[in-house]
Amino acid sequence: MGDKVNQFDEYRSKMNDRILSVDNKVVKRIFNIDTNAYTEGALPVRTKELLGLVASLVLRCDDCIKYHLLKCKENGVTEEELFEVLGIGTLVGGTIIMPHMRRAVEFWDDMNT
Amino acid sequence: MGDKVNQFDEYRSKMNDRILSVDNKVVKRIFNIDTNAYTEGALPVRTKELLGLVASLVLRCDDCIKYHLLKCKENGVTEEELFEVLGIGTLVGGTIIMPHMRRAVEFWDDMNT
Amino acid sequence: MGDKVNQFDEYRSKMNDRILSVDNKVVKRIFNIDTNAYTEGALPVRTKELLGLVASLVLRCDDCIKYHLLKCKENGVTEEELFEVLGIGTLVGGTIIMPHMRRAVEFWDDMNT
Amino acid sequence: MGDKVNQFDEYRSKMNDRILSVDNKVVKRIFNIDTNAYTEGALPVRTKELLGLVASLVLRCDDCIKYHLLKCKENGVTEEELFEVLGIGTLVGGTIIMPHMRRAVEFWDDMNT
Amino acid sequence: MGDKVNQFDEYRSKMNDRILSVDNKVVKRIFNIDTNAYTEGALPVRTKELLGLVASLVLRCDDCIKYHLLKCKENGVTEEELFEVLGIGTLVGGTIIMPHMRRAVEFWDDMNT
Amino acid sequence: MGDKVNQFDEYRSKMNDRILSVDNKVVKRIFNIDTNAYTEGALPVRTKELLGLVASLVLRCDDCIKYHLLKCKENGVTEEELFEVLGIGTLVGGTIIMPHMRRAVEFWDDMNT
Repeated sequence: MGDKVNQFDEYRSKMNDRILSVDNKVVKRIFNIDTNAYTEGALPVRTKELLGLVASLVLRCDDCIKYHLLKCKENGVTEEELFEVLGIGTLVGGTIIMPHMRRAVEFWDDMNT
Repeated sequence: MGDKVNQFDEYRSKMNDRILSVDNKVVKRIFNIDTNAYTEGALPVRTKELLGLVASLVLRCDDCIKYHLLKCKENGVTEEELFEVLGIGTLVGGTIIMPHMRRAVEFWDDMNT
Repeated sequence: MGDKVNQFDEYRSKMNDRILSVDNKVVKRIFNIDTNAYTEGALPVRTKELLGLVASLVLRCDDCIKYHLLKCKENGVTEEELFEVLGIGTLVGGTIIMPHMRRAVEFWDDMNT
Repeated sequence: MGDKVNQFDEYRSKMNDRILSVDNKVVKRIFNIDTNAYTEGALPVRTKELLGLVASLVLRCDDCIKYHLLKCKENGVTEEELFEVLGIGTLVGGTIIMPHMRRAVEFWDDMNT
Repeated sequence: MGDKVNQFDEYRSKMNDRILSVDNKVVKRIFNIDTNAYTEGALPVRTKELLGLVASLVLRCDDCIKYHLLKCKENGVTEEELFEVLGIGTLVGGTIIMPHMRRAVEFWDDMNT
Repeated sequence: MGDKVNQFDEYRSKMNDRILSVDNKVVKRIFNIDTNAYTEGALPVRTKELLGLVASLVLRCDDCIKYHLLKCKENGVTEEELFEVLGIGTLVGGTIIMPHMRRAVEFWDDMNT
């Protein structure tokens, strides 16, 4: 895995630890649900990660996109499938998504290095 | 199907006809891609409709949500699966999504009447 | 209280009951946190409701605005304070907020009828 | 002009009067700038109204769209030009804009009745 | 105060000076209202800064968040209060806010170095 | 032209090539329409670029803003006109636009170096 992937992971972990060190119930519970929402259910994990990816894409959150790209790869999503998600996201969300698509593909390639 | 579903369909068709009666290439092409994006590919139609639904949900577009609810039902999406999509959408997009979830469930119930 | 307030309350309760009748953990937990987030803490309930109001305003969710207007009134927020929140929200979120401000003030007046 | 146009105008005026009856400087000044921003400058009024229209469209504010449609018509914008703005807005903002485009065209037709 | 805080301040001042050197009334007035909106009124400055912070958070503007964090600190906001604002913002705006929360807490810690 | 402009152009071209090397019809067609939407029509190219700029500004996409700034300059847009667009965008979209305005003006100045 490339450097960008490692830097992303380290910063995310470090700041999550810092945030969860504070005793705030609302914040802690949101983190907790977030872990549970993407587990196997009526829909498989893989589909849920694709849902998380397209939601992050249309809301244009680069870090959220990266997180779901990592999870998509772990769950065997192919490049062909990825581009179908990117296509739907860019269609629904508009060309304003394009710079995020560029960074998403760059991160995807970095994950595969 | 309930009245709300019919009204939605009629207005949508009437205005789409009006819009496509104007000779504007950009608008026509966007309508055209929209039809093609949700066809069978590496991902099945059903998954693509779930992607369209969650994207519409987090972008908080009631009419887009209704359209994809109709398509999800046509493709055999169950209530249990629907709620997993609503759960992920509301988690990613926040409680600001809740009023849209209420209207989505109301439309879903109306579709099943 | 005016008719609009009652209609808002009834629809909200009816649909929340419908949604919570489905056994989906993620959705149920989000509803649960939502109830807890606005309770007394380091910040008083009143301030938290003002925060909920301005967040709903800049995210332009009319139903969320109405909900927090009801709570603000219950907690003794005055018209002068309300307009300071509307002012900050419209400044931060832009004139795109204005139609929501109109509907917010209409609902506020309806609450006081 | 059709009924929808009149209803839109009446509600807007009534609520603006109500809002400006409150002595809040921030709100009053925002209303004031809003009037001045679309006056003749380096760019002509007509271009500024097209800018206001496309901004309202991509931010998906139906009432703001209606307001600028009225102003565009007053300034001689043609249907062909309107559709070029709608095309750019839907391209940049995505298919999520489509329901707003439908309502925009409906209002435009109502203005011309 | 840490380096990030200084860099933020310097860039902001430099560009504001550049922007205000241009004779554009609309831009100048918006800057002017912005200064006035957060002054003491029916609501205290402290509450207004919390409102500015949560609005910036749900609209996901890192620079706006940083600006209000500086002002919150100047007005004696505690870490416990900060996290209650972050909790409400993340609840209302969704997990899409999380990366902004991480950067907000990092900047807060940098301010306290 | 300054370094920032060159870096922007290079990254954009490199990633566009990478994205278009994948055989995905939806993505390719969106890229294709994007090229065609800003060509001469009922509205001149110059006006269309101003529309693209203000849409990018209110949707707060820095890379999209930069792209349209380059095109605006190519089409002879003056600083006075630019600031009228920035003024309308910041008014409609709110002070949340300000950090994007700062970066837009910085890039504009870099283009003119």
